[in-house]
Amino acid sequence: MKPLRVGLAGLGTVGSYVASLLLTRGALLEERTGRTIQLTAVSARERNRERGIDLSGLAWCEDAVALAARDDVDVVVELIGGADGVAKSLVEAAFTAGKHVVTANKALIAHHGTSLARAAEQKALGFYYEAAVAGGIPIIKTLREALVVNEVKRLYGILNGTCNYILSQMAGTGRAFEDVLREAQELGYAEADPAFDIEGTDAAHKLSIVASLAFGSAVDFEAVSCEGITRVSALDIQAARELGFAIKLLAIAEGGGDGVRCRVHPAMVPVGTPIADVGGAFNAVFIEADPVGKLMLQGPGAGAGPTASAVLSDLGDLARSLLIPAFLRPAASLHKVPGGDQRSREGSFYLRFTAVDRPGVIAEIARILAVRGISIESIIQRGRDPGAAVQVVMVTHETSEASMAQALQEIGMANNVVETPCMIRIEAF
Amino acid sequence: MKPLRVGLAGLGTVGSYVASLLLTRGALLEERTGRTIQLTAVSARERNRERGIDLSGLAWCEDAVALAARDDVDVVVELIGGADGVAKSLVEAAFTAGKHVVTANKALIAHHGTSLARAAEQKALGFYYEAAVAGGIPIIKTLREALVVNEVKRLYGILNGTCNYILSQMAGTGRAFEDVLREAQELGYAEADPAFDIEGTDAAHKLSIVASLAFGSAVDFEAVSCEGITRVSALDIQAARELGFAIKLLAIAEGGGDGVRCRVHPAMVPVGTPIADVGGAFNAVFIEADPVGKLMLQGPGAGAGPTASAVLSDLGDLARSLLIPAFLRPAASLHKVPGGDQRSREGSFYLRFTAVDRPGVIAEIARILAVRGISIESIIQRGRDPGAAVQVVMVTHETSEASMAQALQEIGMANNVVETPCMIRIEAF
Repeated sequence: MKPLRVGLAGLGTVGSYVASLLLTRGALLEERTGRTIQLTAVSARERNRERGIDLSGLAWCEDAVALAARDDVDVVVELIGGADGVAKSLVEAAFTAGKHVVTANKALIAHHGTSLARAAEQKALGFYYEAAVAGGIPIIKTLREALVVNEVKRLYGILNGTCNYILSQMAGTGRAFEDVLREAQELGYAEADPAFDIEGTDAAHKLSIVASLAFGSAVDFEAVSCEGITRVSALDIQAARELGFAIKLLAIAEGGGDGVRCRVHPAMVPVGTPIADVGGAFNAVFIEADPVGKLMLQGPGAGAGPTASAVLSDLGDLARSLLIPAFLRPAASLHKVPGGDQRSREGSFYLRFTAVDRPGVIAEIARILAVRGISIESIIQRGRDPGAAVQVVMVTHETSEASMAQALQEIGMANNVVETPCMIRIEAF
Repeated sequence: MKPLRVGLAGLGTVGSYVASLLLTRGALLEERTGRTIQLTAVSARERNRERGIDLSGLAWCEDAVALAARDDVDVVVELIGGADGVAKSLVEAAFTAGKHVVTANKALIAHHGTSLARAAEQKALGFYYEAAVAGGIPIIKTLREALVVNEVKRLYGILNGTCNYILSQMAGTGRAFEDVLREAQELGYAEADPAFDIEGTDAAHKLSIVASLAFGSAVDFEAVSCEGITRVSALDIQAARELGFAIKLLAIAEGGGDGVRCRVHPAMVPVGTPIADVGGAFNAVFIEADPVGKLMLQGPGAGAGPTASAVLSDLGDLARSLLIPAFLRPAASLHKVPGGDQRSREGSFYLRFTAVDRPGVIAEIARILAVRGISIESIIQRGRDPGAAVQVVMVTHETSEASMAQALQEIGMANNVVETPCMIRIEAF
């Protein structure tokens, strides 16, 4: 059989790792796939950077997009990143030129997944992206192939290792968010511009992709309700622990009568449950589906090794000529579905207020909640400082998002409440 | 594209569930695989049993083996079970007649996997068995496809839900093994003849299969060192908890310089680790591989729904014409590898003796251990009853299996030790 010839764009840590695996594990890959997978051409910004790999036998493209047009390339591996720009041009050019595409680019897929899937399908090409979600965890293959007969009810998990690292460090050390973030940046766990991670955008990108696979809908990043971890304080983490919870940035997609509801937000989960125990930079995905029941997949969510492993999984599928539509169904059948009414969600809530320590403050807050039919499970004023601002922490019984949103708005305007209240959802899966 | 026509042998709970999914989710399967998967013929012992499914449009074979010869069958799904007998005859006949095979039969694969893989390969047929290991967990697909570039270092987990249920119940209630087993049988979690489960044979079957996939060796059930849970007492469970451990039946396969070492045995694992938290009838598989790192997959290890989900995963692959050798590599390259020297394993041990409560007994045991270079971390005599038999519980520091085996033999022959000592390995992954 003819070799599968690979053109690789992007030689950062992941790209270099992929190149080195292709160069050093060729025999293993050939034994396992029955076909030679051959790296023929590469492209990167700097040609002469030291990467620890020997590129001398490979063609070099100054312009990544030129990889798509090469006769010695059957599949383009796009590891440049970014929702638009060169990455998008390259992938579009690849499909136009009749080349398969493997990518780790979640932003690209979250924003342009459906149209790119259509372009791939028109030429009967593969468009694979195992590395885009949850690093080395085979979540795409599981949803696309292993669960072929299943109806997914709910999918949730920890999809951003940076946030999980920061929250785990905050819980372990009691330190403040900004402190831990700075350290994470120094250690390389967080980017110099951390907004994509800590605002929840990265997790929302990934969630929009797996939701499409799981529920058969078009990728719809805009429909994901998204809230990051920047407002989670050391006090919240400590109060959560006292209440028997850990705080995690969760990504949740739920099917139901009114559509597919996707949301990313910090949540309190009971200590001692598997999701609370996912530590450090790990990712975990939980799938509830019929008839399989509940599956959990856990592993490293980022890093050169895990990401390269996932890229090679896609190349292995292409080497075996496995062609599955990018989102499992024919692109023409991928429709945007209603995002569901986020405000219809029911659950308990953790609330934290900064309020002036004055008789009647808690009574006023309690009254506002009572008017909305929200009953209080516990309420704790942390410290005493008459006339000055103190923290009040509260847990409600089950109520709706809509009621809570109204109550929060009113509480925020109450006389003795200073600062916007902090609300964290409690999830008991 | 022509439909993939399925002949199904065995209509117990799993078989009936598979049939009902094929009959009711045809449209879903066709949308996702691009091909009709059509159930055409079935075989079971009793034709007229009520199964809640409508078999009227299907051909009925009194003799399961006759399914293999039918012109309207492209793939035989074997859900009869058993390492030999009808199941084996059917699978062999299927390959002879040019039909693919999907099976959930771990005993068959553990004993005849390599020769059956060869038979399938000679005719370029699929021989798939996702349902044979860990129920609904996609462990076969993960090892066969997702980890295509990885070198597996170690694979371990909980592969028998019955044993995990019994041990979890013993831990939760403090009750004795026999009690909990009887209850498990009444609830349907254990078979009337539970030997296959509680002696570790079922877990060993499964381990031999995944070890072959992970390490590229021939399936070698005989090489698995196997010890069941029948000697685990309520006292061991209680002592384990006091020492900070849970007791689990583990299946472990380790690659290394001297071969692939496979073993199934009860082990103490630290409380609070993911493997200790796997409860009830769940299964979990941990994979340590390069470059992916550490993956964990957890889910329901048995039951009609999860098993049927896995059978359909295989049928989905066949519908997409995905043909991968049964054990990933060409059958000719599957060789038995040395089982490694089990006795070279190093680790800590938990020991329990029944000894006559008499001065000098513990000194004698300690002396025997010291002679072998085994140092003691803790030793506790449980209760006092001068002149009568009492229980002595001990934890050693790291030592080799070989030293421990010698010491145990000598301790068993010591004057004041009655009964064979109980030894449980401590695993700290």
